[in-house]
Amino acid sequence: MNNWFKFLYLPVFLFFLSGKAQEKINIGEKQTLFSKVLNENREIWVHLPKTYGDHTISPAKYPVIYLLDGEINFEYYAGMTDFLARTPYADIPECIVVGIKNTERTRDLTPTKSQKKSPVNPNLSLFADSGGSENFVKFLQEEVKPFINKNYRTQEYSVLAGHSFGGLFAINTLLNHPDYFNAYVANDPSLWWDNKVLISRTKAYVEKNKKFPAKKSLYVSQADNGERQKNWNSDMTEAIEEFKEIVEKNGSLNYKHRFFEGEVHGTVSYPGNYEALKFIFNGFRTDIKQLAKNPELLEEDYKKLSDRMGAEFTPSEDYLNVVIKFMKSNGFKESETYFMNLKDKYYSKK
Amino acid sequence: MNNWFKFLYLPVFLFFLSGKAQEKINIGEKQTLFSKVLNENREIWVHLPKTYGDHTISPAKYPVIYLLDGEINFEYYAGMTDFLARTPYADIPECIVVGIKNTERTRDLTPTKSQKKSPVNPNLSLFADSGGSENFVKFLQEEVKPFINKNYRTQEYSVLAGHSFGGLFAINTLLNHPDYFNAYVANDPSLWWDNKVLISRTKAYVEKNKKFPAKKSLYVSQADNGERQKNWNSDMTEAIEEFKEIVEKNGSLNYKHRFFEGEVHGTVSYPGNYEALKFIFNGFRTDIKQLAKNPELLEEDYKKLSDRMGAEFTPSEDYLNVVIKFMKSNGFKESETYFMNLKDKYYSKK
Repeated sequence: MNNWFKFLYLPVFLFFLSGKAQEKINIGEKQTLFSKVLNENREIWVHLPKTYGDHTISPAKYPVIYLLDGEINFEYYAGMTDFLARTPYADIPECIVVGIKNTERTRDLTPTKSQKKSPVNPNLSLFADSGGSENFVKFLQEEVKPFINKNYRTQEYSVLAGHSFGGLFAINTLLNHPDYFNAYVANDPSLWWDNKVLISRTKAYVEKNKKFPAKKSLYVSQADNGERQKNWNSDMTEAIEEFKEIVEKNGSLNYKHRFFEGEVHGTVSYPGNYEALKFIFNGFRTDIKQLAKNPELLEEDYKKLSDRMGAEFTPSEDYLNVVIKFMKSNGFKESETYFMNLKDKYYSKK
Repeated sequence: MNNWFKFLYLPVFLFFLSGKAQEKINIGEKQTLFSKVLNENREIWVHLPKTYGDHTISPAKYPVIYLLDGEINFEYYAGMTDFLARTPYADIPECIVVGIKNTERTRDLTPTKSQKKSPVNPNLSLFADSGGSENFVKFLQEEVKPFINKNYRTQEYSVLAGHSFGGLFAINTLLNHPDYFNAYVANDPSLWWDNKVLISRTKAYVEKNKKFPAKKSLYVSQADNGERQKNWNSDMTEAIEEFKEIVEKNGSLNYKHRFFEGEVHGTVSYPGNYEALKFIFNGFRTDIKQLAKNPELLEEDYKKLSDRMGAEFTPSEDYLNVVIKFMKSNGFKESETYFMNLKDKYYSKK
């Protein structure tokens, strides 16, 4: 063996050795795309649901959740969607999660150029680089979404989820481009931004359009920033509550507002994101035990759900397999046959 | 280049190529150990917190959470602990999470041998292989824990978390081996098991020992299994409520019971596990803004926490760095110096 040969052989050997000793648990993959709109490389983190690569079922399509502040939220969010979509208790369909990692966060997520004195030290100016949200939403709509739709099997239903400036961005996107996403999640949104510019925009929107578009969902969580931080966040609380009043009075949006006692600005995303998905997909869960006696209920439930969501949802092959197995192992012969036929109807291989 | 050489060169090249195209997002590693107690190979999934491999700080030690039904709960749980431990909003210390993957779940998690007719089909018998929990807890205590303590930097504080039969197991472990873990989490525990044998054991425990041991925590979540599943789970609900009454009357355990409206047996673990950690580490969060004016508060808070937990907790180097940075960037010179000295006290490199 010559020396060069040994040199090459070593890393191969080490790779297999370390690969065996520690099998890694992966929840996603990082993709980098160059954005012409933003003129920079952007990293996105993609999580695929459990059945995505399951070759025993027909290739399925999945709704997509676009998650802002990816580097902070991606890991728990990916696990959360899998858990929430776990048969037979699924509250939501299995989803693809796309986390967007920040570069210039304030620039991308804020709707106007606006500076502010630091509430802690008035000699400091904050947010010099701001007001780029129209560019950033263009990047999402014209670059990220086509990339995801091209490279992954996606269903035409998408959610935009953000926190703080990301929540501000989500609400601004709903006002400016309500057709871009089906559902919007805003956790403790920074509606205080630029003298509450989004409150003015919301009022203007309602005045002009009368109603929010049908079958869109918006979930807003509000943190318990309370007395302790009164000097820091009181205009935040005020703005969120003003927004709530306008939207609730208008009444046309599938809207939920939730105040979380004991959660502060930096922690509220976690329970907020969980409840938001349960709210958006409310009606998705079907009771497998009821289906034993009333199998027609499944398609009825899915029809209702699709009507409410403004998008077609059908029972997944994976769920039908669970239902069939349940009927079989518990001796519900008729229902077993019913669901075998239903599975054929949706997933028979031609 | 000879052919053998090319053959070796190719995988090296492909490895680097694929490594670049799709960087994976890892949240843990799988370890296999042979259990002498159980006479089988067991797989455990280990998640290390964000700062575990951070070479800019001194090597830290971390509490360990032993999580049952690892294959179902590990992914969201790992992300959840990282999010909950995120500075400056941390509600809990950074933790190592050890997920235990099942082989014979019913055998390992149930305290007695007991069969039951299927509630759906009375011709079927369930749980033929049951009653192995003493063996399984021995495996955890004598094999898993030493393995983890040897291979990872662990602090002497550990949590056992389980759901359903895993919740039954957690409560049984608290009764039989209260010294094994510092805190116990039981999500919708199957206390109906074997004619409520654990209710009898709890009564016997209280009669014999009068009080539960000091500074131990127990969190029990209860699902909203409600009317719809009345025929399936009513003895479950009954047993959990009987247990609650005994423990609350006794009063010596750091105990929280929470009923979750709208969560069923299969979904309650998610919000239950979140709230459980916030309950167990209650008092961990310190308010960075208050520290600006009252820096002594940090050590006072940690002293109170350590007293309550029955284990020593100190501010992490990572958190002290965040505090110092906050003081510096907001111009709190005195507090900055105070925390630089505090960091030196805990983490000066000799």
